[in-house]
Amino acid sequence: MKIVENIKAGDIRAVSRVIRNIEDQNPQVREVIKELYPYTGNARIVGLTGAPGAGKSTFTDSLITHYRNQGLQVGVLAVDPTSPFTGGAILGDRIRMQKHAQDSGVFIRSLASRGALGGLAEAVDDAIYALDAMGKDVILVETVGTGQSEVDIMNNSHTVVLLLTPGLGDEVQTIKAGIMEIADLFVINKADQQGSSKLYQELQKLLEMSDFAEAGWKPPIMLLENIQDSDRFFTKIGEIKEKIDEHYQVLVEKGLLERREKRKAMVKLRTCLQKVVLAPMMQELQDSGRIESMLEQLVCKDIDPYSLAEDIYAQYKD
Amino acid sequence: MKIVENIKAGDIRAVSRVIRNIEDQNPQVREVIKELYPYTGNARIVGLTGAPGAGKSTFTDSLITHYRNQGLQVGVLAVDPTSPFTGGAILGDRIRMQKHAQDSGVFIRSLASRGALGGLAEAVDDAIYALDAMGKDVILVETVGTGQSEVDIMNNSHTVVLLLTPGLGDEVQTIKAGIMEIADLFVINKADQQGSSKLYQELQKLLEMSDFAEAGWKPPIMLLENIQDSDRFFTKIGEIKEKIDEHYQVLVEKGLLERREKRKAMVKLRTCLQKVVLAPMMQELQDSGRIESMLEQLVCKDIDPYSLAEDIYAQYKD
Repeated sequence: MKIVENIKAGDIRAVSRVIRNIEDQNPQVREVIKELYPYTGNARIVGLTGAPGAGKSTFTDSLITHYRNQGLQVGVLAVDPTSPFTGGAILGDRIRMQKHAQDSGVFIRSLASRGALGGLAEAVDDAIYALDAMGKDVILVETVGTGQSEVDIMNNSHTVVLLLTPGLGDEVQTIKAGIMEIADLFVINKADQQGSSKLYQELQKLLEMSDFAEAGWKPPIMLLENIQDSDRFFTKIGEIKEKIDEHYQVLVEKGLLERREKRKAMVKLRTCLQKVVLAPMMQELQDSGRIESMLEQLVCKDIDPYSLAEDIYAQYKD
Repeated sequence: MKIVENIKAGDIRAVSRVIRNIEDQNPQVREVIKELYPYTGNARIVGLTGAPGAGKSTFTDSLITHYRNQGLQVGVLAVDPTSPFTGGAILGDRIRMQKHAQDSGVFIRSLASRGALGGLAEAVDDAIYALDAMGKDVILVETVGTGQSEVDIMNNSHTVVLLLTPGLGDEVQTIKAGIMEIADLFVINKADQQGSSKLYQELQKLLEMSDFAEAGWKPPIMLLENIQDSDRFFTKIGEIKEKIDEHYQVLVEKGLLERREKRKAMVKLRTCLQKVVLAPMMQELQDSGRIESMLEQLVCKDIDPYSLAEDIYAQYKD
């Protein structure tokens, strides 16, 4: 396919088009992904998450520069929970990353869940394939780490960095349940603010409760002060980058990388089965108009949804 | 089935057992749900959501008393995102509702997502069926409204109440994207705190941007002060309860109830198809041991996940 060749050649317009089609859940995109897939697997995926206001944009911005200084090609996917109310809010942040706009070694895209509920985690998977195949060495995936879908998205990553800020209180930390467990690196941002040492101690306590024997890696807690001196700030981010690299080395050396890759493959296979098997079944019900009377039967309690699903599948198989 | 008879008779131990099995994703529970389903559809489902610390427990507590005074049977499902780190945090709140513990007309259960990621929305569906079939007139479903899974859960409800608190800032409100759109009633709790009128104005602005012509209901914004005088507080919650009842009446009168029920049925049918069709397929791959080599092929990029899913289904159908 022409578009696949263009993506492999690093054509930004081709990549943008395929990502737009992924967002729109355009069914034709599947054939593109199939052809791209053999050219993936070279990129390192770094997940970055934290509540709004935790400082993700500034952090990402600086991290990009470090990777660029190392001569690496960088892709960024900023995953936005879209809403007619707040749709533009997080997208606005992207403007701060514009300073890389002139650098052809950096590709930044926001990814939103348009229309249909759910499906964002799958969209992120496919978008990562596109960035990987276009030749990005490092792909940063940034989300607001608050829900199950974000946990699913982070499961894609080789290394997950959780940005925390003091002063948001215990209660806000509760929100990040799930993300806490998959974080490989904790960064307390704005560490000069009040409550920072309390947050540090709490994190340490949480980490002590946890078992890292199997994981082979004890997540470090790093402090990042709200440094006005941008050179010092940049150096500090460099230290965090070193830790991210170190984590990846541990994955490789301890044979943990393969296990992560297999887990990712399992999750992806499951979602692909859903698309391949269920989507055409639902489509058939809709096209034939049978769905209307089925929904009526369900509402009237003439049949239960499990039995109906069994009936539908039995008929469909024949 | 004996357990179905016991649930219909309102036996608390039977209901607790079935809910535990739902949480554990015990496959046998499906047969119970099938038999319970015809006895559901009588309860009104009220969803209550808001960030941790928004005051959901106190609110629910008082709402229960109002419904009890009206002579209605009340069920409460408190949905907790479980984590080895924070697992107990929200559960602790339940203790505050213990004052209804002696009242056999009230049944309160926490529902957690144990083990497997996802699946919580489906578990809530099935638990609602159990409470509905046991004869509860009103079922309050309470969640921390922060992610996609919570939006899915709230989609179950006839009426969704969103509790907000001033002072959490614009950024925190962003988190609730998705929930905002499905809320039928906005309650600003702790409305005597600073930032309350700003929050009110922001909400109004958001609501103006939105189109309620089709919905037939413009979500009201109600203020709930942090009233120390518990009688006054109770009266105020009573007014909110009236609004919830009014919303349900609008649904009935404008024929919107049926549309909501059909939408719910559609979502449920889809998840049932997943369980009926995909679960046995994955099981077969695991039992035969074929999954291991498939995952290796995926990791080595010998095949892409979409093509593999197509192959699996083609073989499985024969």
